[in-house]
Amino acid sequence: MAKKWVYLFSEGNKDMRELLGGKGANLCEMTNIGLPVPAGFVITTEACTQYYEDGRQINDEIEGQIVEYMKKIEDQTGKKFGDKENPLLVSVRSGARASMPGMMDTILNLGLNEEVVEAIAKKSGNPRWAWDCYRRFIQMFSDVVMEVSKSEFEKIIDKKKAERGVTQDVELTTEDLQDLAEQFKVMYKEKIGKDFPTDPKEQLFEAVKAVFRSWDNPRANVYRRDNDIPYSWGTAVNIVEMVFGNMGDDSGSGVAFSRDPATGENKFYAEILMNAQGEDVVSGARTPMKIEEIKKTLPDIYQQLLDISNKLEDHYRDMQDMEFTIEHGKLYMLQCRNGKRTAKAALKIAHDMVNEGLIDKKQAVLSVEPRNLDTLLHGSFSKDVVKNATQIGKGLPAAPGAACGKIVFTAEEAKAQAAKGEKVVLVRRETSPEDIEGMKAAQGILTARGGMTSHAAVVARGMGACCVAGCSDIVFAEDEKSFTLGGKTYTEGDVISFDGSTGNIYDGALPVQEGAIEDEDFATIMKWADEIRTMKVRTNADTPTDAKKARELGAEGIGLCRTEHMFFAGDRINAIREMIVADTKEDREKALDKILPLQQGDFEQLFEAMEGDPVTIRFLDPPLHEFVPKTDEDIAKVCADTGKTPEQVKAVIAGLVEANPMMGHRGCRLPITYPEIAVMQTKAVIRAAINVQKKHADWKIVPEIEVPLVGIEKELKFVKKIIVETADAEIKAAGVDLQYKVGTMIEIPRAALTADEIAKDAEFFCFGTNDLTQMTFGFSRDDAGKFLNAYYDNKILENDPFAKLDQDGVGKLMKMAVELGRKTRPDMPIGICGEHGGDPSSVEFCNSIGLDYVSCSPFRVPIARLAAAQAVLKQSK
Amino acid sequence: MAKKWVYLFSEGNKDMRELLGGKGANLCEMTNIGLPVPAGFVITTEACTQYYEDGRQINDEIEGQIVEYMKKIEDQTGKKFGDKENPLLVSVRSGARASMPGMMDTILNLGLNEEVVEAIAKKSGNPRWAWDCYRRFIQMFSDVVMEVSKSEFEKIIDKKKAERGVTQDVELTTEDLQDLAEQFKVMYKEKIGKDFPTDPKEQLFEAVKAVFRSWDNPRANVYRRDNDIPYSWGTAVNIVEMVFGNMGDDSGSGVAFSRDPATGENKFYAEILMNAQGEDVVSGARTPMKIEEIKKTLPDIYQQLLDISNKLEDHYRDMQDMEFTIEHGKLYMLQCRNGKRTAKAALKIAHDMVNEGLIDKKQAVLSVEPRNLDTLLHGSFSKDVVKNATQIGKGLPAAPGAACGKIVFTAEEAKAQAAKGEKVVLVRRETSPEDIEGMKAAQGILTARGGMTSHAAVVARGMGACCVAGCSDIVFAEDEKSFTLGGKTYTEGDVISFDGSTGNIYDGALPVQEGAIEDEDFATIMKWADEIRTMKVRTNADTPTDAKKARELGAEGIGLCRTEHMFFAGDRINAIREMIVADTKEDREKALDKILPLQQGDFEQLFEAMEGDPVTIRFLDPPLHEFVPKTDEDIAKVCADTGKTPEQVKAVIAGLVEANPMMGHRGCRLPITYPEIAVMQTKAVIRAAINVQKKHADWKIVPEIEVPLVGIEKELKFVKKIIVETADAEIKAAGVDLQYKVGTMIEIPRAALTADEIAKDAEFFCFGTNDLTQMTFGFSRDDAGKFLNAYYDNKILENDPFAKLDQDGVGKLMKMAVELGRKTRPDMPIGICGEHGGDPSSVEFCNSIGLDYVSCSPFRVPIARLAAAQAVLKQSK
Repeated sequence: MAKKWVYLFSEGNKDMRELLGGKGANLCEMTNIGLPVPAGFVITTEACTQYYEDGRQINDEIEGQIVEYMKKIEDQTGKKFGDKENPLLVSVRSGARASMPGMMDTILNLGLNEEVVEAIAKKSGNPRWAWDCYRRFIQMFSDVVMEVSKSEFEKIIDKKKAERGVTQDVELTTEDLQDLAEQFKVMYKEKIGKDFPTDPKEQLFEAVKAVFRSWDNPRANVYRRDNDIPYSWGTAVNIVEMVFGNMGDDSGSGVAFSRDPATGENKFYAEILMNAQGEDVVSGARTPMKIEEIKKTLPDIYQQLLDISNKLEDHYRDMQDMEFTIEHGKLYMLQCRNGKRTAKAALKIAHDMVNEGLIDKKQAVLSVEPRNLDTLLHGSFSKDVVKNATQIGKGLPAAPGAACGKIVFTAEEAKAQAAKGEKVVLVRRETSPEDIEGMKAAQGILTARGGMTSHAAVVARGMGACCVAGCSDIVFAEDEKSFTLGGKTYTEGDVISFDGSTGNIYDGALPVQEGAIEDEDFATIMKWADEIRTMKVRTNADTPTDAKKARELGAEGIGLCRTEHMFFAGDRINAIREMIVADTKEDREKALDKILPLQQGDFEQLFEAMEGDPVTIRFLDPPLHEFVPKTDEDIAKVCADTGKTPEQVKAVIAGLVEANPMMGHRGCRLPITYPEIAVMQTKAVIRAAINVQKKHADWKIVPEIEVPLVGIEKELKFVKKIIVETADAEIKAAGVDLQYKVGTMIEIPRAALTADEIAKDAEFFCFGTNDLTQMTFGFSRDDAGKFLNAYYDNKILENDPFAKLDQDGVGKLMKMAVELGRKTRPDMPIGICGEHGGDPSSVEFCNSIGLDYVSCSPFRVPIARLAAAQAVLKQSK
Repeated sequence: MAKKWVYLFSEGNKDMRELLGGKGANLCEMTNIGLPVPAGFVITTEACTQYYEDGRQINDEIEGQIVEYMKKIEDQTGKKFGDKENPLLVSVRSGARASMPGMMDTILNLGLNEEVVEAIAKKSGNPRWAWDCYRRFIQMFSDVVMEVSKSEFEKIIDKKKAERGVTQDVELTTEDLQDLAEQFKVMYKEKIGKDFPTDPKEQLFEAVKAVFRSWDNPRANVYRRDNDIPYSWGTAVNIVEMVFGNMGDDSGSGVAFSRDPATGENKFYAEILMNAQGEDVVSGARTPMKIEEIKKTLPDIYQQLLDISNKLEDHYRDMQDMEFTIEHGKLYMLQCRNGKRTAKAALKIAHDMVNEGLIDKKQAVLSVEPRNLDTLLHGSFSKDVVKNATQIGKGLPAAPGAACGKIVFTAEEAKAQAAKGEKVVLVRRETSPEDIEGMKAAQGILTARGGMTSHAAVVARGMGACCVAGCSDIVFAEDEKSFTLGGKTYTEGDVISFDGSTGNIYDGALPVQEGAIEDEDFATIMKWADEIRTMKVRTNADTPTDAKKARELGAEGIGLCRTEHMFFAGDRINAIREMIVADTKEDREKALDKILPLQQGDFEQLFEAMEGDPVTIRFLDPPLHEFVPKTDEDIAKVCADTGKTPEQVKAVIAGLVEANPMMGHRGCRLPITYPEIAVMQTKAVIRAAINVQKKHADWKIVPEIEVPLVGIEKELKFVKKIIVETADAEIKAAGVDLQYKVGTMIEIPRAALTADEIAKDAEFFCFGTNDLTQMTFGFSRDDAGKFLNAYYDNKILENDPFAKLDQDGVGKLMKMAVELGRKTRPDMPIGICGEHGGDPSSVEFCNSIGLDYVSCSPFRVPIARLAAAQAVLKQSK
């Protein structure tokens, strides 16, 4: 039996969205619950996939079924496709499984040609309308199917209006529209080289193919990547009998929401354009009116719409977004879906609906998109502002938020200008640890290089600062005092804006809406989420400030403190440099002794901030060359501190250069070559813990010391021995009773593969998925930007594996490590502290493989809390 | 019940070498088959391991058993340890599971003190002998146990001889020796701070501990690493009743071989020193005589020794190396073991023993150490030469062979000097592809940086050239016109020698013995090996010369042709550079068109060389920056060729710089961004195959095209599509019938983890274990030298994972990939072409996981053939 590729609206239902797409499934559902939906059918998403498999062809079987179903709706409507008496016109609408508003294409009024237009003109007694439909169809078909730019047509219309001395489309006469249709067809032939198709069947199949094709257009691909929608899903196509909102003053088109999508207020909200087709509403060419204005003119329609809105919300138990058309006083529903909403609205609606008894707490928790919370926690640009802004480029959405300010090119300048009260944005090729203070002072950071886990991205997320990274279209001048982007050159002081949630960069100043989390709905939903989730949520925090912020946002401990981030502040870097250039163990120890009290002080503040909750401190991880002096001035300072000559210092620096530093002398390889570093860091941790424990008898401080970059069990054994000997001696000397744990990052593939061995010494595991992703893919995160775009373009990757965990590869290693680790140590606590710890789909995966906690940057803590709860709910299904 | 830590010689046998060590097990065996062995016992290797576990202490249980067994040999011998009438003296000898000649320590004459020496003087009536034993004991004990340097004692002896006006030790009188013993003890007290121990039991335990400790001495650690002996094995300790070869002219000590260890000739071969202790034979202070000289003086002894030699060879079915002592005309056997031998001897002995019916072909194949074949294939330094040479440093044994020549510092100079007939060695910080011709011209290559898979190492192995790599003790002058090593400064023209099989570097000129494989024994043993092995052996060859050499050495195909190695020769590099700086696809294609016929020509020669056997051609792998011009002159050439400005070319070069190039834009990432590269290479392969097939109708050419660095199935799918479309078009255009395969390297961890997916498109797999090791460990092979020594010193690693496959981690991934790959494609051919393909233990592992072939550099082909046969034999056990 042939596969079923096509479904009448009466044959489907809302649970078939995988096969019929969201729009199709809901058109079926509305049909079945008795709402006024025009006749129509759905071509399945599988037909789309098949179209691609067949080399972008619609095969005979599918074509046959489409023709057959056109017959069925001809029968339903009593009209005939291409008929010269009572013709059937249809719209061809895309509709994927997940809503992708505006990403794919729609064609209205299909089935028209010179004869059919006359037929409808005659039948309707409204030739102006008929010709308006026709010229619109030619425009839309040419644009969508044949990629003739809309603006070409607009030019012809503008010329006509000028000739006729009018300014509005509505002022054009039937004859004008006839002439326009004629001119459009002439241009079509010029551009395409053949006549505009008059055969409705040919029009139909070309339109269906165009919709299938639009699944693969660049903006759809970007949208999917941003919204975690797999390419393999494909889109369905809806063929719907045309109804016309542009047939006079008793007709119109509009959109409605069952609640306010901006605030969440439980109040029916709709807009309508009288005497207009749907595209006029969407295009914004005319300003729609509030639905309340038709209460008097069309009171029955108003009431019917309100009733339908209530009925659909009750039916779907979610806020609905609807499209409708009124044709000669009769209402038709053309779409319904769960409405997009702001984070604020999402929280309020969820909270309200529970109070109203419409949904339970679990459903409420599931109804809020975790990613959306970003806009509550950070600034944002409103939709309206973005609509009118001039986008000049796009980078990676590295750290959420909205930034607007004068361009500066150095961290020093950022600090200086900010001190004077200027709002500045820092634009750099890439950032380095030395830039941190300038990054803090700026409204946002924009870099030309680096990925989602580059220095700029990681640090900005930690600070809650806005960052767009890796915008490779930025071309810097050689002196890095200006750059070009979007065809324009920007120099210091020019103003730009950018959005760290989308990666979009805009010319000039855009107003920033500030985020706000003092919201009762937020608190309530997060409380419910906390009740549901089983994974703990910790934070990655390197400074007391970060730790406090994270605590406010609900962090239940520190999952990752990168001790090296403390090394740059103030004079510390000088002591580090002294250590690096030291020739002997003694000299190194002397330099380390200077750092010890400073690190200890930081650790005390972190323990204080976490109030007895766990704190994981990772030992020094990056290669030492990251700390070396770069300028002659800095080198001179090191010489003054150590008595070395500049040549000696430069020789040390040269000796630290590595071909592939990411796989070089770093992580646990440092204390294996220089055990005294681990000794100093252990002392700092243990002394800090003892001091804080003394002050707070009611807390139980159990510091967790984490050894990075372990790939061989004996590496951990070696470093652990140093830690244990040092720690035990400190504890004994202090005469106290303090417990501590020694564990390791699992961030080298070999560590995951041999986790049973490593678990012999590791008292906890924490996945460092940034490095694990690098090594598992063999992708340098600093360099992958050079080829990842080609990977996206060719569908080799649909997501940045540094942002969204690769479950098939990296995830497989993680699963192995969990199983092997717990084989040796059944109660082993296991967490994740890579950037993926704050990504919702990755959090869900972590829950599924049995992790005990996720750890993420402070501003992602609420997202992780919500995602962890949703993971429990989804997995219990 | 207490564990048994100690075995009498009568309690063990030859099969207990794991527990008793080789020497101990064989002393037991000789005792049991009735040979004259002094009384004694063995302290097990487990006791050694326990000693380390107990923090370098001998625990009470072990100590108790040693004391108990001392009693047993007192009973056997009727002598008493420390007795003043009839004292027992013993030797304390190390003996690991595998023979480690000269690596660990031995102490003779233990049990002596002022009183006991008088007792033996009296009992023997030979006070001079007694005092000679005593002063030797003090020397040996001080050296081995207390690390007082031997030279300190030699100074005192020299002074004494000068005072007495004599030159030979034997000219010293009893009184002289008494005085020496006294002076030795005084110096001992000065150095150690306490008296020389007089209690024999204390002496015994100190000596046992010293032997245990010697397992961990630096030279033993290096030897183990070179010989694949695990640290965990530990050494046994043999306590043997002393017999004395230094009691007069009817006494002596010697070593014997059942066949000639240098030539393999089936002829008893022994040397003896009359009136001497074993250490005199070993130290080389006196020259021993041929055993035949005692035929007349001690005919019974001669005959007895000959009989024992025959008996032991028959018993062990292998050539025996024996130590013996004659005391007052009575023969004692002190050791037997399978003798070390040259490769030539090993082959002859194996061949002869099969002819003699002593062993079968399988045993013959197993008796030859694959690594040893290196000396047959390459030059070497004789043992005697090395003994007297001045070693100035040690690097990694990167490519076997022996080199001697005048130092040059640049490839150009190497070429120039070699052209004049000079023998030169090329010494560089590291080599790059541009150095290849200079490397060919040199006798050997010595580098200061880089590991076993560095450019110098890989290329040298491929050429069969000698190379010592990564000698980090070499300190270059800033201008790289001189270097210091071993405390001496070397400039151009100075002569050094080095051994690529050991990594040892020597001052001055050492004579090189040339290798020779025209040997009937070699051919026979290799034939037997080929009959046994099931894995094919291919070669890694990039040039027709390499391919021909490999074919001579038995290669059954090319497992890896690195196409980029062809890119440097002659003018080709200019075309490559043109391609790199091209702005458009068209310009790139224009440049690629120049390379196409050259590559095609190379491929034709490779197909010709392999005579229809499989040839795997890997597509361009390294990052493009490896090919960019470096000098202003080269940049000018590119500008002339392309019409670009130097600034433009420099901008391209700057744009190619990567933070971690090993994980950057390379491998299959190149054709994904520039598909035209894959198009060109496919054309070259297919056209070459078609041409060669036409010439040789009896061959079946099936080129294997290999896509490198795949980690995601869609990467392979994408590149395969380009290859298949191009290849099919070429084949169709030529009107021929040609088959070809498209496969992939498995060298990224993710490829191994998702091998079932990748196998959907891959028609063969080949493990690239160099990269796989890098990514699995997170070790950059260019940088790992900075910390690997600390890893060896701390026993974190015992081998270089780039030389010997890491079976626990990398091997686990390989096993997964084989299983997953064959789940999808059960008949999938799988090979290995990393450097491990020529390492015997790695070859054995490859056999165990079911690989179809190994591929290695040409000069390792015979080693791999033998190792593959041994793998079958070992695994069938």
